[in-house]
Amino acid sequence: MSRLTLFIANKTYSSWSFRPWLAMRMAGIEFDEELVPFSDGGSNPAFLAFSPTGKVPVLRDGDLVIWETLAILEYLAETHPALWPADMSARARARAISSEMHAGFQALRSECPMNMRRPRRAIPVSAAAQADVARITEIWTSALAQSGGPFLYGEFSAADAMFAPVVNRFDVYALTEDAEILAYMERMKALPPYQEWADASRQEPWVVAEEEH
Amino acid sequence: MSRLTLFIANKTYSSWSFRPWLAMRMAGIEFDEELVPFSDGGSNPAFLAFSPTGKVPVLRDGDLVIWETLAILEYLAETHPALWPADMSARARARAISSEMHAGFQALRSECPMNMRRPRRAIPVSAAAQADVARITEIWTSALAQSGGPFLYGEFSAADAMFAPVVNRFDVYALTEDAEILAYMERMKALPPYQEWADASRQEPWVVAEEEH
Ligand SMILES: N[C@@H](CCC(=O)N[C@@H](CS)C(=O)NCC(=O)O)C(=O)O
Ligand SMILES: N[C@@H](CCC(=O)N[C@@H](CS)C(=O)NCC(=O)O)C(=O)O
Repeated sequence: MSRLTLFIANKTYSSWSFRPWLAMRMAGIEFDEELVPFSDGGSNPAFLAFSPTGKVPVLRDGDLVIWETLAILEYLAETHPALWPADMSARARARAISSEMHAGFQALRSECPMNMRRPRRAIPVSAAAQADVARITEIWTSALAQSGGPFLYGEFSAADAMFAPVVNRFDVYALTEDAEILAYMERMKALPPYQEWADASRQEPWVVAEEEH
Repeated sequence: MSRLTLFIANKTYSSWSFRPWLAMRMAGIEFDEELVPFSDGGSNPAFLAFSPTGKVPVLRDGDLVIWETLAILEYLAETHPALWPADMSARARARAISSEMHAGFQALRSECPMNMRRPRRAIPVSAAAQADVARITEIWTSALAQSGGPFLYGEFSAADAMFAPVVNRFDVYALTEDAEILAYMERMKALPPYQEWADASRQEPWVVAEEEH
């Protein structure tokens, strides 16, 4: 690997950027960060200069450009296997829930966008978003019960990184009163890289009206 | 690994089932197939008996249940690494396009559902679906140009399996006239396991009206 560069957008709003950023910090992987803010609501035509899909995150390793969060995590895991759980069955389940996160939970994602500096305040959510909350609660509860915690599969893994923006959503939209879930969220929020990201969010000048719910 | 069981739905319509089924056949991985047909349009409450999300495919390996297509492919690739390209850069790109497929191309997927026994006939498609066709054409063209073919990354890989249902869509809805793309589609359709799946589809008694466009 050459020196890695991770292209991201606003720390306040870019949930996909947060995932590999947190995973890399937690795994102690050094990288340069290139933050290109959203220009146009939740996008920016300038992303096309470095991203084949016009989306962030993108990881650059020398000449190699890797887009899509899961592909970035798998690429890094090849040289940093501790990104996934060591146990084969736990690793399979960690990938299954990461994949569920990647393509799912649309209602929750659109109604309750990640917002790292939003004061906690409940809003009305649809039945579909409530079903998403219920499924995520089931995923977290069963993983924590099987592993014993403190993170989903014991030590922090890429699966926790995949759900980190949901920790923020559950928190700032007050989506849960479940004590085990709240305790897991507190452990995630107490991670120094989680705090570093949230602190940087509070320094950002940009406000994206569409993302302020 | 114990004897593997892959739970799938209708070969005619279940695009997600087709992906790991084709990958496993191409990799020479033996498995038992459990086909549970859709009962209710594109779903079946009975899937919940073996699937934590109520969706197919699901892979069972002894006590271990793996859901989500990408997680199934990664699980199998741990013991059958030839499922992904051998070259690290090609492997990263193969995972990136597989991940794009997993969460993307919604317009194409809803307007042109996979249908393994549909006679070829064009239908009007939206601008969004046309943009999906354009992006997929770009993905296939650039992968084939870089690898030299015959498949996206040279030898058949999980990335080809991820796009196999799109080969069917491009074919039966007549979505392309690009000669390179048509030639790639012919190579995919000529694979014996592709034909085995299509032949079995033609034997199925079930018609799902919502999927007949
Ligand atoms: N499937 C992509 C999702 C990436 C994504 O949607 N990123 C957002 C920012 S959080 C984006 O770049 N949006 C710009 C756009 O859609 O134009 C991944 O896994 O990385
Ligand atoms: N993200 C899932 C998608 C699976 C999926 O949507 N499967 C469809 C059949 S092709 C299904 O089971 N639908 C039933 C339902 O949604 O209730 C995967 O990667 O496997």
